[in-house]
Formats: sequence, structure tokens, C-alpha cells
Amino acid sequence: MQDKGNVIEENVYLKYLLTPQLEEQAPRYFDIMLKINDAHALMLFKQELISRQEAKELLSVSQDIGNRGISGIELSAEREDLYLNLEAHIIQRLGSDIGGKLHIGRSRNDLYAAIQRIKCREELLKVAEIVIDLRETLVGLVEKNIETVIPGYTHMQPAQPITFGHYLAAIGCALKRDFDRLIDSYHRTNLNPLGAGAMAGTGFPIDRTLTGEYLGFDGILKNSLDAVAARDYAADIAYAMTMLLSDIGRMNQDFYYWVTSEFSTLKLPDEFVASSSIMPQKRNPIILEHTICKVSHVLGTLVSIVTTMKGLPYTHTRATGGEVFVLLWKAFQETETTIRWMCGLLEKIEIDRENAFINTRKNFSTATEVADELVRKMGLSFRTAHSIVRRAVFELYSQQKTSEDFTWDLLNRYSLEVLQKPLEGITEEDVRAALDPLENIKRRSVMGGPAPKEVKEQMTELKKQLQQDCERIEQLKNKIKSAQSKMKEQIDRVVNQ
Amino acid sequence: MQDKGNVIEENVYLKYLLTPQLEEQAPRYFDIMLKINDAHALMLFKQELISRQEAKELLSVSQDIGNRGISGIELSAEREDLYLNLEAHIIQRLGSDIGGKLHIGRSRNDLYAAIQRIKCREELLKVAEIVIDLRETLVGLVEKNIETVIPGYTHMQPAQPITFGHYLAAIGCALKRDFDRLIDSYHRTNLNPLGAGAMAGTGFPIDRTLTGEYLGFDGILKNSLDAVAARDYAADIAYAMTMLLSDIGRMNQDFYYWVTSEFSTLKLPDEFVASSSIMPQKRNPIILEHTICKVSHVLGTLVSIVTTMKGLPYTHTRATGGEVFVLLWKAFQETETTIRWMCGLLEKIEIDRENAFINTRKNFSTATEVADELVRKMGLSFRTAHSIVRRAVFELYSQQKTSEDFTWDLLNRYSLEVLQKPLEGITEEDVRAALDPLENIKRRSVMGGPAPKEVKEQMTELKKQLQQDCERIEQLKNKIKSAQSKMKEQIDRVVNQ
Amino acid sequence: MQDKGNVIEENVYLKYLLTPQLEEQAPRYFDIMLKINDAHALMLFKQELISRQEAKELLSVSQDIGNRGISGIELSAEREDLYLNLEAHIIQRLGSDIGGKLHIGRSRNDLYAAIQRIKCREELLKVAEIVIDLRETLVGLVEKNIETVIPGYTHMQPAQPITFGHYLAAIGCALKRDFDRLIDSYHRTNLNPLGAGAMAGTGFPIDRTLTGEYLGFDGILKNSLDAVAARDYAADIAYAMTMLLSDIGRMNQDFYYWVTSEFSTLKLPDEFVASSSIMPQKRNPIILEHTICKVSHVLGTLVSIVTTMKGLPYTHTRATGGEVFVLLWKAFQETETTIRWMCGLLEKIEIDRENAFINTRKNFSTATEVADELVRKMGLSFRTAHSIVRRAVFELYSQQKTSEDFTWDLLNRYSLEVLQKPLEGITEEDVRAALDPLENIKRRSVMGGPAPKEVKEQMTELKKQLQQDCERIEQLKNKIKSAQSKMKEQIDRVVNQ
Amino acid sequence: MQDKGNVIEENVYLKYLLTPQLEEQAPRYFDIMLKINDAHALMLFKQELISRQEAKELLSVSQDIGNRGISGIELSAEREDLYLNLEAHIIQRLGSDIGGKLHIGRSRNDLYAAIQRIKCREELLKVAEIVIDLRETLVGLVEKNIETVIPGYTHMQPAQPITFGHYLAAIGCALKRDFDRLIDSYHRTNLNPLGAGAMAGTGFPIDRTLTGEYLGFDGILKNSLDAVAARDYAADIAYAMTMLLSDIGRMNQDFYYWVTSEFSTLKLPDEFVASSSIMPQKRNPIILEHTICKVSHVLGTLVSIVTTMKGLPYTHTRATGGEVFVLLWKAFQETETTIRWMCGLLEKIEIDRENAFINTRKNFSTATEVADELVRKMGLSFRTAHSIVRRAVFELYSQQKTSEDFTWDLLNRYSLEVLQKPLEGITEEDVRAALDPLENIKRRSVMGGPAPKEVKEQMTELKKQLQQDCERIEQLKNKIKSAQSKMKEQIDRVVNQ
Repeated sequence: MQDKGNVIEENVYLKYLLTPQLEEQAPRYFDIMLKINDAHALMLFKQELISRQEAKELLSVSQDIGNRGISGIELSAEREDLYLNLEAHIIQRLGSDIGGKLHIGRSRNDLYAAIQRIKCREELLKVAEIVIDLRETLVGLVEKNIETVIPGYTHMQPAQPITFGHYLAAIGCALKRDFDRLIDSYHRTNLNPLGAGAMAGTGFPIDRTLTGEYLGFDGILKNSLDAVAARDYAADIAYAMTMLLSDIGRMNQDFYYWVTSEFSTLKLPDEFVASSSIMPQKRNPIILEHTICKVSHVLGTLVSIVTTMKGLPYTHTRATGGEVFVLLWKAFQETETTIRWMCGLLEKIEIDRENAFINTRKNFSTATEVADELVRKMGLSFRTAHSIVRRAVFELYSQQKTSEDFTWDLLNRYSLEVLQKPLEGITEEDVRAALDPLENIKRRSVMGGPAPKEVKEQMTELKKQLQQDCERIEQLKNKIKSAQSKMKEQIDRVVNQ
Repeated sequence: MQDKGNVIEENVYLKYLLTPQLEEQAPRYFDIMLKINDAHALMLFKQELISRQEAKELLSVSQDIGNRGISGIELSAEREDLYLNLEAHIIQRLGSDIGGKLHIGRSRNDLYAAIQRIKCREELLKVAEIVIDLRETLVGLVEKNIETVIPGYTHMQPAQPITFGHYLAAIGCALKRDFDRLIDSYHRTNLNPLGAGAMAGTGFPIDRTLTGEYLGFDGILKNSLDAVAARDYAADIAYAMTMLLSDIGRMNQDFYYWVTSEFSTLKLPDEFVASSSIMPQKRNPIILEHTICKVSHVLGTLVSIVTTMKGLPYTHTRATGGEVFVLLWKAFQETETTIRWMCGLLEKIEIDRENAFINTRKNFSTATEVADELVRKMGLSFRTAHSIVRRAVFELYSQQKTSEDFTWDLLNRYSLEVLQKPLEGITEEDVRAALDPLENIKRRSVMGGPAPKEVKEQMTELKKQLQQDCERIEQLKNKIKSAQSKMKEQIDRVVNQ
Repeated sequence: MQDKGNVIEENVYLKYLLTPQLEEQAPRYFDIMLKINDAHALMLFKQELISRQEAKELLSVSQDIGNRGISGIELSAEREDLYLNLEAHIIQRLGSDIGGKLHIGRSRNDLYAAIQRIKCREELLKVAEIVIDLRETLVGLVEKNIETVIPGYTHMQPAQPITFGHYLAAIGCALKRDFDRLIDSYHRTNLNPLGAGAMAGTGFPIDRTLTGEYLGFDGILKNSLDAVAARDYAADIAYAMTMLLSDIGRMNQDFYYWVTSEFSTLKLPDEFVASSSIMPQKRNPIILEHTICKVSHVLGTLVSIVTTMKGLPYTHTRATGGEVFVLLWKAFQETETTIRWMCGLLEKIEIDRENAFINTRKNFSTATEVADELVRKMGLSFRTAHSIVRRAVFELYSQQKTSEDFTWDLLNRYSLEVLQKPLEGITEEDVRAALDPLENIKRRSVMGGPAPKEVKEQMTELKKQLQQDCERIEQLKNKIKSAQSKMKEQIDRVVNQ
Repeated sequence: MQDKGNVIEENVYLKYLLTPQLEEQAPRYFDIMLKINDAHALMLFKQELISRQEAKELLSVSQDIGNRGISGIELSAEREDLYLNLEAHIIQRLGSDIGGKLHIGRSRNDLYAAIQRIKCREELLKVAEIVIDLRETLVGLVEKNIETVIPGYTHMQPAQPITFGHYLAAIGCALKRDFDRLIDSYHRTNLNPLGAGAMAGTGFPIDRTLTGEYLGFDGILKNSLDAVAARDYAADIAYAMTMLLSDIGRMNQDFYYWVTSEFSTLKLPDEFVASSSIMPQKRNPIILEHTICKVSHVLGTLVSIVTTMKGLPYTHTRATGGEVFVLLWKAFQETETTIRWMCGLLEKIEIDRENAFINTRKNFSTATEVADELVRKMGLSFRTAHSIVRRAVFELYSQQKTSEDFTWDLLNRYSLEVLQKPLEGITEEDVRAALDPLENIKRRSVMGGPAPKEVKEQMTELKKQLQQDCERIEQLKNKIKSAQSKMKEQIDRVVNQ
């Protein structure tokens, strides 16, 4: 058995828990902690819980600390966390009588709860803004491809022709829902827990509404226990990003089929293609491979968050305060990066129109329309019409022919076989028109269908939604900015007086 | 090596895929499929795509089939799925000329997409309604426990006294967010995919708005490809139920601590307690154990749904049409059952007020208030006051005394030690009052705090929200009911004419 | 607000917890419970804890109960679980003096722990046996396809030609690891917890080894607390099945590409292809779609199990005893069914050799070999050779030519450009041979490569492993069978005396 | 709508994909890549694919690069990845004729596959070694607590007394299984993929066995496609760590109950206890809170890995080559850190023996033994004895008495009530003895039970297993070390000649 001397490490807690924790949280939380301190000090002054002079000193030193940045503070894990380090620094500079008053009427529990919500709100806004960019790029691509015929698939088998514009509009609808989920999670995030204290509020007559206003929160988490216990918003965010990456991954999976040498219907921009170190002919679509899988990690993050919360007491613990967030920051970054890739890719992606059209003509994907013609022109039931066309198609199949070989004669032969009578009121021209991909698409002008006029309609709606969502984002950002200006102004008034 | 004869099974596909699939889907989807058929037939008639007589026959036979129930249809997996079985039955009764017209302008893809959304909407409404019941029960319990003192914990260590009413109000806030998530998912579910056909719409001039109205949908999934490809709503539902069970699980975990013989602060109703087959003294709170874990299965379901969608083409496939739902139906049932347990349990659960109060007095959880008093009365900074009280508490700790032994003298001793001066303006009475749990709670009257007047305020808000949410549910249900009545009326008009 | 009268349901616990639980567990556990009862009674007799007469009566009535089946027992959830119902039945028939002795020296905790392990072992063996069938079918398919040329892909771009046999041998290797994981989990499952009592063993001098032998366990879970607390084996099983379905899903995803009309390199048997209700030309490979996704549900099950165990005390609870298994039984069934599909499918799947060969010739996937020839014949570094060939390939690409147009002249031109000298020691014939798919494959005769002789070697190894694994399975089954026979014999001796 | 100018970023691919990827992989993979290069160059020389002089130059420059470290290489994401940067550097120094030969007979696909397996093996060994430390610490703690009485719980209700040593031995059994899972995953990891090339091997006569030996692999992944496609080992590792953290989390959850002020049966060392910033009395066991939740993140990692692999083609892609590992490195680190915490904690943790004993005496947890005595001494059936004791216990319960008030008279009273006869052959002494916790424990001497002699037995077995596992680890480490020495020697021979 190995020497026990190796086994026991001293200061395990300090070395492996407090130190890495402090190193991680300091740069991430520093700026936000200062802002919350300012809001709290300002509120204490308004509520006459500290004097103007005390407020002035606290706010001035905070400004100075902010200017010097995190490196201006000596950090030691022996003082536990970032807050106790910062407080020690302030007390060192202002003395305990003043510096010690900053923490009146609050606790680290509500403080960190507030920091985490503000950090998440910032990251979420970044993601949401890039999703706006992506949707914009996508709508631009719809516009250019309203008449770009591509095979439509179900079960990855050619089904009916559509346009690339129609395809992209479908993705646009999905992205709209994904965006809405992000914004929903934003509204569950941007709520003020300050004033909840350790979990039972405080006996000091603080004003929770005021700190909320200074910090740009949209509302208050009323119940003080709920305010320190709830982290459901972290799951909401992870879930919203999961679904965003799920939909984006599905689009990329389609692209992944289409860029194979066998499909050859989509061309990636050269700059997005990787070569092989040994195979001279390779054009590897690795960007798609990365993107398809990104949902996995954010789903893993969601599992990590929900499982962390499983079996937790409904109050503040280090699970809510720390473990919930272990994977979340990386998930934000992965999501943001992936959307950036997509914006770049969609700018330059192109359908190989010729190949796409050839594929569409060859693969019988317009056959349904011939059946529909039989229904319309001969008054057949759909099931009967389907049966006639199916037989015709299978004959061609068995002869390895394509839908270009589908003729009136062929159809007539099976009409005779199935109905015991020839085609009526249906011409060679009708058959050819039904089989023509673009004609076929144009006829599918039901609401939401692939017909160009319908896709234009969808595009108009996507644009309108995009416009509204741009404005929503602007409003959210402006609200925060104006709260910050207001607080700055009040601070200046106290400090400069 | 074993005889190859055993290996090859004939009809694997029929036996192990189609048959169990049909057996599962038939009872689940039958009624909804009939309703959608009726809406479709009625619309085809309004759009003059079928004649009044054809509509009459289709609707009459549908009525008859509905009356006889699923057992009236001969089901064979050789015909693949429920729809083709039902269609075959109708064609058998009405002939191909009429029966075959039912499927004009649609496909199984949009049909099943619609069925699944309606089924999910029904299940969701059931869950949401019971959550209303649960919230109602909970609010009733808040009302009864506004002055029931219990220890408040952070990190499961006694922190500050609160009331059971305050605790329950925190859960009430969480349940309100959980309910909102359910309703959000409802709105992403209750959208009409009908008219999307296989994925490219149809060339027949159908009216998608009309079928949507007949079936009580709230809106339309415009893009036809999106309509058959999107199943994000299934994930939304699983996620919403996950978070609901997460919050409920956390409450039950607290109860699980409190019912231990060591805490003895909560009493489960006898009927919820299991005995042991060998230990005569056991009162096992197994209901709590089951409930704490339910989140796990719905989280697993969510993982199953998102992972199923990973790497799917954005179109209809059997993954979207079938695999997405494999675990979802059980998740609905687990969720519903769990909430029912909770309603029953909360009706009869009781705090052991005496034990709870004793625990609160003994465990120093009111010590923070003494420090606050020093701040208020002597103008000390919080950090200094905290330091004085901390020393006093640690002396008692080391002597295994409780907070009942905390006196003015003790505090004064540490005032002298830390400040080099005695207590000023603070009396023996002040110290006792600060340490008294109920007095302590009453002082914590910040917005959202545990003070009885604040909890009453919170309760009023919870009641108001509950009232509004009851009405929301009623509106959702009424909308569906009135759509059904309208369709019924129209059907009667056609059938009985 | 709705009438409170609707809210409160009586007997919630009985109706929504005990009743469904009993209904689910009774048919699943009945037979196993009887067997364990028999083993326990026999052991009690051997240890002289009950008399021969008592043993005889207990074993006889057990036999009779087994013969009548579960329907012979009146089940009532008021008696809680299956065991208490069964005990009540036995006591009713034998009186409390004898019937009440069956439970000496044990508890429901170790009883159910044992039942669950035996049930899991049965299900696992079923899965493992079908995996043997699948591997056998797969090896048969390797044998038939050792020279069937197909394009090999990386990043789904044509890389180098391989054979279908080589591809399948890769899957065979994966399935071997998957099988080993199943067997590993079997060995962690098939351990005896009986004798652990409620968790602290028992004071009666029972013999744990004896019950273990009667029931065919491979070993004993020594520590009595561990024996009732541990459910890691359930996660092991779910994990092993997850990986099995992961590998099978990946193979099916490849097939899903290959059966597209664009690839057209693989043909599914007709009986596995679904038609469309509206598109006459469709041949939908829905079996592949289902199979690709099955991993999702078993992964979800694994998440459910691990999350259930998160935060559990290390002892018996209803979480270990019930919640752990909520999704597992369905996971067994899904896994078994999926493997059955695969056995059926692989029996009849076929490569379209002509299309596969054409694709391989056209797509430059043999170009690496030309670079290798330059290294071998001209002593160039690989990087230089790669550069020459890459330029040649890109010229053809830009002219939309295929690798059939690759000539010595072309290569020479780029040799001159890059090396400033012509090709040396390399002939037109060398170039053609390097580009020929089958020749290319034959040269790749490194250990594990696609060359036919190498694939034969791999096949031989796969067969050998299969043979050994068949024997392992037989041994496992025989061990259980012989334990059962031995117990039966001993029972007969007691009963018939 | 915002200015499109903001939307399009140039070089998205370079900036957001290649650059961060290179920055992450360079320090992680650099050393291992050099070692693999050396092994490959040496093998090429042995196989006469390069000359002695070429080998000498390649190996010398590699040595030099290793000495300078990663900072000696100019890294540019324009060259894509670490390998192409390193190759460019080598070519710059040795010229293309020699530098370009390093890549003969291989590809980046098999290269990175090998790097990742070696990196994972290193991390796994680190984790496994600390688990050995943990088990050692735990066994030491068992030894000290063989007679330390604590209440045993089921359903967190007092069940029967056990010892802390018995409890810890249970955890020791779990950790043994966890360790075995780690080692199992090691054996699936440490296999050689080199020689698989891009996926179809190579035409050069390389020797795969030789590189495997140089690099300390335990075996070869034969099939070349399998070698680049398989990443199941990454899931195996994540799964093994998940279960390790699951078991450790469960132990910590027990501790979390026991350190509450209500249980007060366990004392954490002071250095592991966090204070509160406002509540002077707090001793927060935050280390337990962190540890309980760690399983969540590794479970999330496992979900990320399996979901990444879902729907992948069975070949090399960037999903297998990159996305699989996105969360794994952090999971290693989290696991290692957590185990280090545990080693430190278990060194100093202590049962409060007095409180533990008092709790055990008071809570009726010895009542089962009284029933057992009735069975033994009076020949009653267990069910009858249980019924008598149960009534006695409930009387005391209802009077809020403890098991200290349980007397012969009481028992006799219920004997009369149930049996209509007094106790026979059972004395006051017998009753007291049965109720005495330590006596009670001593009687539970069934194999694996809590009796001291049994726990000593278990401890001996745990020590023996530990000894064997120490040796296993040593062997694994020595095998790698000796492979490295052997390679070093061969390199020296070539370089210094």
C-alpha cells in the first residue's frame, strides 16, 4: 500500500475549493458586484440608513476600485469569496465604521443571487442579438431563393418539389419560436432578489424597489425565501438555448446531406471547407459537423442544472449559489459562437440550381400532382387516382426510368386497367404541366405552401416579426442603459457634492 | 453456434413494429382522428371540393363509427396504421368513390401532426387544472400558518426564524412560474398544422383557417414544411413539467427533513405513512420519496425528446411522428399523479408547532437580530456588531448552551472586549426581544419578508394570480368547447338535412 | 375560484399510489417472489429455523399458488404491496403460526432488492441473446460482401474505397464491445442481497450463501446496508443498452444516407419499406428512422436512473426500491424490439453493387493512392506528392470531370509544375491501377484494412469471439437452470416426504 | 432593422472556429503528439520506409521541439490545426523532403484518435489513483469506528442501530465497484488506433503492433474504420465517473443530514466549515453541498457525449474528433477535485458518539430485536411477534415516550392482549438486552451485518481488494513507463549514432 504521507493533503478546502472558486468568480462577477454595491449604498442613503458623508465615501471608493480594475484588489482565498475580499479592501481604505456599513440590510445570499441574474441577462442579450442577425441573414436568403427549385423530402426520400426559399422560411418560423423562448427566459431572469437577505429579509427599512430600478430589473422576486432559493431561470435559459441549437442543428443536418457528392445540391463557401492532410480531393464540411452537435452540450448543461436542483432544500445553498452554474457559462459561449458561424455561413451558401432542378425532375417527386389532376379533372376519389399513378410510377421504377419518361399513354394504360376506361378531360399537356417542378410548386398555393406568392407572404411576415423583435431587444437594452444612467447621475450628485 | 433457424424471424417488421404501434396508437388517437376527419370533410364541403351528399355520407358514417367506438373497426397491422385502417373501413362502407375523397388535400403527415397536438393539449389542460387545485390548497395552508413559527434554514443550518406560511408562500411563487411555463407551452402546442399535406401543402383550394376554427386551435403553423417538421412543443411541455416537478420535489425534500424523528417539526397524515414489514416502530414517509424523484423521469423524457430531434432533417420523419412521443405519454401521467398526491397531502399536513418553536428558540437563529440591534441602537457598523455577537454565540456553543442562555451581560462582556466600552442604549429587554422568534419575525417586515403582515400581502397576491389563472384555464377550455359545439351544429345541419 | 369540494379527493394515497403500484408489480414480480420464498423457506429449514413440517406446508402451498397463477390471489392495495398480499393469502391458508414464519430473518427490503436483480438478469439475458443473433447475422453479411466495393467516407465526403464487408466488420467490432458491456452489467446485477434484512442483517442464524445458490446468483453483496442501498447495476444496464443502441443507430444512419435516391447504394427489403398515403412514388425507410432514435429513450432512462439516485441517503428508500425502475422496463423492451428489427433487416439488405462501384470510380476517392505511388516510386515526401495530386484533382473538379478522366499526362503536368521535373519510374498503367477501386482496396492490406484477405482475417476473429460469447451466454443460462433444478429437487424431497 | 454592415463578419470560420480550437488543443495535445510522432518515425525506420538518416533528423528535431516546449512553435490558425502547424515547423527546419515523410502511412484521423486515447488514459489514471487514496482513507475510518454506534435508517426513519464502521464499509463496497468501472473504461480506452489512416488503413507496409508497443497501448483496434469511428470509450469514462460521483454524493447527503443541528451526530472539521457574512452562529457545510451535486455535471457530460454520437455516420467526423470531448476535460477535473475534497474531509470527520448513542436509544430502532426474541424464545411466528411489539411501541409513541420506557410489563400486557397468554421464557433482562443498541448490533452477526466481528471481516476484505487494486494501478503505470523507456532507448540509439 502506498505511503500514507502522500495521501493527506493539508488545506484541501482552501486549495481545491476556495482558491479555484475565487479565481473563477472574480473576473466574472467583479464589475457587477461593484454596480450592486453602488445601488445598495445609494438606497441606504435614500432610506437614511447611512449618512450622506458615509454614502459619499462608499461611492467614491467604489468608483476608484472600478477604475483600477480587479487587479487593484489583493485577493486571498483565505477570506473565502470575492465579496469578503472586496469588503476587506473597502474597510481597509475607509475603516470599519464606514466600510462595515455597506452590508447593512443584506447578505451574500441576495447579493450573489442578484449578480448571477445580471450576468445571465447580459449573456442572454448577447445571444438574442446575434439570433436577430441570423434571422436577418436568413430572411435575406429567402428573398434570393423564392424561385430556386429544390427537391422536398419526407423520410429523406424525394416527396414533392419546393423552393429553397420555402425551406428557409420554415427554418425562419422555427427561429422565431426559439427567439421567443430566449426572451421568455429573459423575463424570468431579470427580476430583483436584493433585499431578501439571507432568506428572511431584514429588519432594516430598506427599499427593494429602488435598488431594482437602479439596476434595471423588470420586477421583484417578492418572497424573500423564493428570492434566494429559485434558480429555475438558469434552466429556462439553458432550455431556450437547447431548442435554438436543436433547430439550427436540424438545418445543418439537411445541409450535410445536400453537400455530399451524391446530392451535390448545396455549395459551401470555400473558406468554410477543410482539406484533408492526406486525401487530395477532400472538401470537408466540418462546420456543419460541429454545428449539428452543439445542441448536445447545452442539453447536457440543462441536465446538469436540473439534476443539481433535484433534492435541494428550498432555500439558499451552495448548490443553488454555485453548482447550478458550473456548465452554464460555457453553454452561453458555445451558443454564441455557433450562431456566429451560422451568420457567416448563410451569407455565402449557395444552391447548385442546376443539380437541384435535375434531381427534382428525375425523382418522381411531382407524381402526387398527377393524382391530384385526376381528382380534379375526372372527379375520381383521391384513393383511386393514387392507385393509378402508383402503378405507372412503379413500372418506370422497375425499368430504371425517371419521371421524365412519364407520359399520357402510360397513365392512360393504367386508367384502363384500374377504371376500365380511358382518361377523360386530361391532356398530354396537363400531364407534362403536373410533372413540371416549378409549375407544380406554383400550384401549391395554399396558405403556407411553396408557391412563390405564398413564400413572399411568409417572408413579409418573417420580416415584420423581425422588425418587432429588433425593437423588443432595443427596448430591453435601453431600459438597462437608462437605469444605469440614472444611477450614475445620482451617484455623481452624492460624490461630487 | 446456435441453429440459424432460430435466428431469422419472418414478418419482423409487421410483428415488432407495425402491430405494437397500431395497438398503442389506436385507443389513444381514435376519437381525435374522427374529429379531425369531420372538420376536414366539413371544410371540403364548404370549399365545394366535395358535394353536400358526399359530405353527408362521410359525416354520418363518422358519427356511427364514433358511437360504436374503436372496437367497431377491424384493425390489421397489414394496413399499416390507424388512419389506413379507418379509411379502409369507411371505403368498405361508402365505396371508394366517396370514402376515397376524405383524404383530398391532406396527408397522414399533417393529420398525425394535428392529432398529436390535440392529444398533448388535452393532457396539458388536465395537468394545468390540477396545478390550479394544488395552488389553491397551498394558499389555504398559507392562510392557516401565517403565525406558525418554524426555523428558517440556509445550507440546512438554522438561519433565521420564519413562518410556515412564509415558507409555503415561497413555494406558491415557484408554482406560479411553473404554471406559466405550462401555459406558455400550451400556446406553442395549440396551433394548426392541417393543410400542410405531406410537407408542401396542396394544390386543392382548401381553407386552413376553417379547420383550425372547427378544432379549437389558437392559430396556424403557416409554413407547410415547418408544420410537419416542428415538434419543439413536445419538448416545451416536457420541460415545463420537469420544472414543475423540480419545484415540488424540492418542497418534498424539505418535508423529508422535517418529518425525521430528529427534526420532528412536521407531521404527515397517517394515511400517507407506510409501515414496515418487520420494524414495528416505522412511519415511513414514502410518498415524499416518490415525489422527490419524479422530476428525474420527466427530465429523462425531455432528454429523450431532444436527443431524438438531434440530427433530424427538418421535415416529417418517423422520428418526429413517433419517436418523439415514446416517453411523453407516461410523463403526463406521472406528473398528473404526483400533483394529485400533493393535493391530498397538503390538505392534511401539519406543523408540530411546539417542536418547531422549541427548535427555533434553541438554535441561535435569532442572533442576527441582536447584531442588527447593535447597529440600530449604537450606530455600529454591521461588521463590528457581527463580530461582537459571533463571539458571544461561540462561547455558548462551546458550553453546549442554547440561545435561551444569551443575556445582556454576555453581550456586554464582548462589547467591552471588542469596543473597549460597554453597551449603550440597549437594555436587557431589547436583547430578549431581539432573540424572541416571533418578535424577530415581526420585525422582518421588508417587502416579501416573513412578518405576518407581509405574508398576508403575499397571500393576497397569490390569490389574485390564482383567480386570474383559473379564468385563463376556463377561457382555454371554453374556446375548445365552443369550437366543438359550432362544428357539431354544422355537422348536424349537413347530416340531418 | 372553483368549488373546494372538487379539490379534495379521499384516499389519494390508496388510489393513486398503492393501487397502480400493485397493479404494475404483481404480474412482473409474482413468479420471482414465489421462487425467492421457496429458497428462503428451504434455507430456514436447513438452518433449523423452521421444522420440516412447517417447511413442507410452506413449500406445498407455494407450489399450489404458483400453479394457480397470480389470478388465484385476491389482491388489495389496502394491504400495500404484493408481498403483504401474498403473505396474507398464505397466512389465510396455513394460519399465522406457520404462514407468519416465512418472513423470519428477512425484510421486504432485501426481498425486493433480490426480485429486481433477478428480473433484470432475465431481461438482460434476453437482450444479450438477441445481440448474439444480430452479430451472427452481421458476420454472415460480412462473408457475402468481402469484395463488394463501396465508397468509404469521412465527413460524409468520399474518402477511399472500402468494401461493404469491411464496413460491417467495423460494426461487428463495436457490437462486440457493446455485448461485453451487457455482460459486465450482468455480473454486477446477479449478486445476492438476501439476508440483508431491512439494512442491518438479522440476528437469526440464516445462511446467505445457501439462498444465493438456490437462486443462481453469482456472488453475495456482503455488506447488508450496501445490499439494500445499491442500485448502480440498474444504471449499468441502462448504460450498456444505451451504447448498444448508439452503435446500432450510427449504422442505421449510414444506411439512411445510402438508401436515398441520390446515393442509391443500398436496397432495403420491400417488406421494410413504408408507402405514402398520398405520394405514389415513395419508399420510406421508416425502420431506419425509428432505429436511429432508439438510443434517445434509453439515454433518457439512464438520466432518469442517475438523477433519481442523486441526493439519496445510502440506504433503502422508495426511490431505490421503486423510482429507479420507472422507465427501465420499457427500455428493455425497446432495446429488444430494436435488435429484432435489425436481425430481420440485415438478413435481407443488399448493396446495389453497380451503383456503389460507379460512385466509387467517379468521386476521386482513390486519389490518395496516386500520391502514395509517387512516394513509393519517386521517393517523394508525402507532403510533396499530396501537393501534386491535389492540383491535378482540382483541375478536374473545376472542369466537372471525374476520376475516370485522371491520366498520366495530367499528373506529369503537375509534376513539372511542382518538382520542375517529369514523372520518373511511374507508368500510365501504375496510374490506372492506383485509381482502380478494387485494386486500391487490395493494396490496403495493413492489419485491419479493407483488403479482402484482411477482412477475412477480421471475420475469422469476429466468428471466434461470437463462438466464445455464445458459450458464455450458455454458461450463464445453464448456471441458473441448474440452480433451479437443484432447488426443485430439494423442494420435492421436503414436499413429497 | 439594424445596419447590415454589422452583421457580416469576415473570417468567421478562422476567428470563431479554427483559432479557439487551436488555442485549446495546442497545450493539451502537444506533448502527446510529439511522442506519437516519435513512435511513428521509429516504426517507419524499422520498416525501412525511411532511412536511418531521415529517422535521425526527424527524431532529433522532435527532441529539440520537446525541449523548447509549445512556445517554441509559431502557431497560426490559418494552418488549421496543431498537427499542420507542427508539420510546417518541422518542414521549415528539415526541408520538405525529410519533414514531409513523417506523415507516410498515416492521417490526422488516426493521429488524433490516438492522442485522445492517450490523454484520456492519463486523466483516468489520475482519477483512479486518487480513488485508491480515498478508499484507503475510508478503510482507516472504518477501523476506528467498528464500535461507534449510530442509528441506522431506512426511509430516513430510525430503523435499527448500526455502527459508523458498518456504514462506511457499505460505502467502501460501492467505491470498489466504482473503481472497477473506471478500470474497465481504461481497458476500452488504451487501444491503438494508429495505422488506421483516414479510415481505410494504408498501402504502406507499416507495423501497427510496433507503434502500439512504443506507446504503451494494451491492444489494437483492428478494423481501420472502427479505429477512427469509435468513441464509445469516452462515454465509458464519463459513465464510470458519473457512478463514482453518484455514490460519493449519496454518502455526502447522509453527512448533510447528520451535521444538521437537529441530528448533531456528525462533526465536520472546522477548516471545512464556512461562516455567514451576517449570521454569527452559522457553520455551513458547503463542502457537502458542492459534493452532492457533482454527479450532475458529469451526467450532463455523458448526455453530451451520447447525444453527440446520436445519428453520426460510423466513420471519422469532427463530431467524433472534437464535439465528443467538449465537456469531458472539465469532467475529469471536477471529478479529481471532488475526490481530493473527500480525502481531506474523511481524514478529520468525527461522529459525535454521545449524541449518536442517545439518538439510537431513544428512537425505538431496536424494537425489531424484541420481536425477534419473541420468535426465538416463545416460538411465535414473526408476524404475531411483530404485532405484539408494534402495539407496545405505539402506546409509548402516543405518550411521547422513548424506547427507554419500554419494559417487560408493557410487553407482557400486549402478549396477553394478542395471545391471551403472558410472556413465557423471556425475562426483564432479555427485554433490556434486546433494546440495548450495542448488544443489538452484536447479535446481528449474519454475514455482512453490523456486528463488530462481521465489520472486521468486511474491513479485511476491503483492505485486500485495495491492495490488489493498488497493484493493478502500479502495473498499468509501469507498463506505460517501461514502454516509454524502451522507446527512449531506441530513439537514443538512432539519434546518437
